[in-house]
Amino acid sequence: MKFRRSGRLVDMTNYLLNHPHALVPLTFFSNRYQSAKSSISEDLTIVKHTFEQQGIGSLLTVPGAAGGVKYIPSVNKREAEEMIKILCELMEKPERLLPGGYLYLTDILGNAKFMNQVGRLFASVFAERKIDVVMTVATKGIPLAYAVASQLGVPVVIVRRDSKVTEGSTVSINYVSGSSKRIQTMLLAKRSLKVGSNVLIIDDFMKAGGTINGMVSLLEEFEANVAGIGVLVETEGVEDRLVDEYISLVKLADVDVREKQIDVSQGNYFNFYQTIKGSSGGIKE
Amino acid sequence: MKFRRSGRLVDMTNYLLNHPHALVPLTFFSNRYQSAKSSISEDLTIVKHTFEQQGIGSLLTVPGAAGGVKYIPSVNKREAEEMIKILCELMEKPERLLPGGYLYLTDILGNAKFMNQVGRLFASVFAERKIDVVMTVATKGIPLAYAVASQLGVPVVIVRRDSKVTEGSTVSINYVSGSSKRIQTMLLAKRSLKVGSNVLIIDDFMKAGGTINGMVSLLEEFEANVAGIGVLVETEGVEDRLVDEYISLVKLADVDVREKQIDVSQGNYFNFYQTIKGSSGGIKE
Repeated sequence: MKFRRSGRLVDMTNYLLNHPHALVPLTFFSNRYQSAKSSISEDLTIVKHTFEQQGIGSLLTVPGAAGGVKYIPSVNKREAEEMIKILCELMEKPERLLPGGYLYLTDILGNAKFMNQVGRLFASVFAERKIDVVMTVATKGIPLAYAVASQLGVPVVIVRRDSKVTEGSTVSINYVSGSSKRIQTMLLAKRSLKVGSNVLIIDDFMKAGGTINGMVSLLEEFEANVAGIGVLVETEGVEDRLVDEYISLVKLADVDVREKQIDVSQGNYFNFYQTIKGSSGGIKE
Repeated sequence: MKFRRSGRLVDMTNYLLNHPHALVPLTFFSNRYQSAKSSISEDLTIVKHTFEQQGIGSLLTVPGAAGGVKYIPSVNKREAEEMIKILCELMEKPERLLPGGYLYLTDILGNAKFMNQVGRLFASVFAERKIDVVMTVATKGIPLAYAVASQLGVPVVIVRRDSKVTEGSTVSINYVSGSSKRIQTMLLAKRSLKVGSNVLIIDDFMKAGGTINGMVSLLEEFEANVAGIGVLVETEGVEDRLVDEYISLVKLADVDVREKQIDVSQGNYFNFYQTIKGSSGGIKE
């Protein structure tokens, strides 16, 4: 089927958005649209320019015979600040307070669109690390983990606290919860992770970091590497954090049950924020 | 900022893909691009044509002062057949067999990209029903539920089998598992679902339908309506199915542990498949 430029731009945008971090050879597009490589190059230059201008992401060029283009989702600083601000405001609503000083966050985690946006924030900040798989622990971290994984073009593995017959054989570890100091168990299906995998750990909430530290120990059992750690919310004022480097979007400073006051501020996200180094100039044949 | 047509097409495509089922007024785009409504109409006609030709979805036009365009994700029949065929082949691999005749599906459910594609299949077949929220039960149904919800532009609520302090007060029901005949409990946070909501139930696996039937009972407690039921896999040969109307992608016919033979066929998806009735012709100012 022959395409005009306008049709190519629409379809190409859809294709690239659905294949983040995948290397797409120019010949793929020239075959798909029955168009000369020179036209495809011009198209991609337009796509690249618009993606960067509108904060959709970068289009990297990999030169050479095995080369092509790669769409890297990213978020510009202004948009990231705006989203983190929205998250702080959402979390500070007094009606979130539950007995015992816990916060109701189920509506935030249940908002599929918002999770996708938050997923882009993490995919953006971890874009230049080598990541083969995203790992989380059931249940609340799952939506965010999938959102991040979708934008990185990698699969997800889910650590469980209970054994299920449909998982086959599992590897389990005991770990000490950082805040309650209780011994807990977590397990992962043996065949779900390859030796040597580079794993990005994603979770919704981190207090002392016991659960995340447990996942790190589990990764050692699989001879896998921690490629990064990202959490939606960290709590402030933890003395002995069990986790070294992590990236958080927001920090829960103080919950005053009496005054119904919840104090949320920006996490350490911007300490790690960087603009993705796209290739300068146009996309050559 | 002034945009040329080529830039508008790229950005518009991205915007529409990120806002499925949302009504976008033409004035939104004409303000965004500082362009005349007549140019925007022409752009949208190109987008619509490409979306339909490439099986990305439909672009519906809602006429009048409160009108605009709405992107409805959909899958054409050929693509749906292809995807269901891939799913059957994936599931039939003998190495999936676990002791007791269970199947290991964790890798399929962990494939974020594949889940998004399967989500599009369901979003497509349920596109014309009124849906306010997608519901599933923890844990395995969660990725698929979010994928469907993303494409329908609605949130997700997750039913749990155990109570969590971070959920606040909950409504719980007891139900009888259809295959094991055991009494089980499921619960949902009270504030997670509004009275009168139209709910699409999504799950990964349905045997006799006890779990799904439990979710239906739970919805009655919330005075909510079942807008539809979708499952990735149903098992064949169930005599007393507890659920009436449901849509399945594949049907697990027989598992022969001795011969290591797994028999998977197409589900009832195509009994419900229909082409989305887009507006004919171009998009008018």
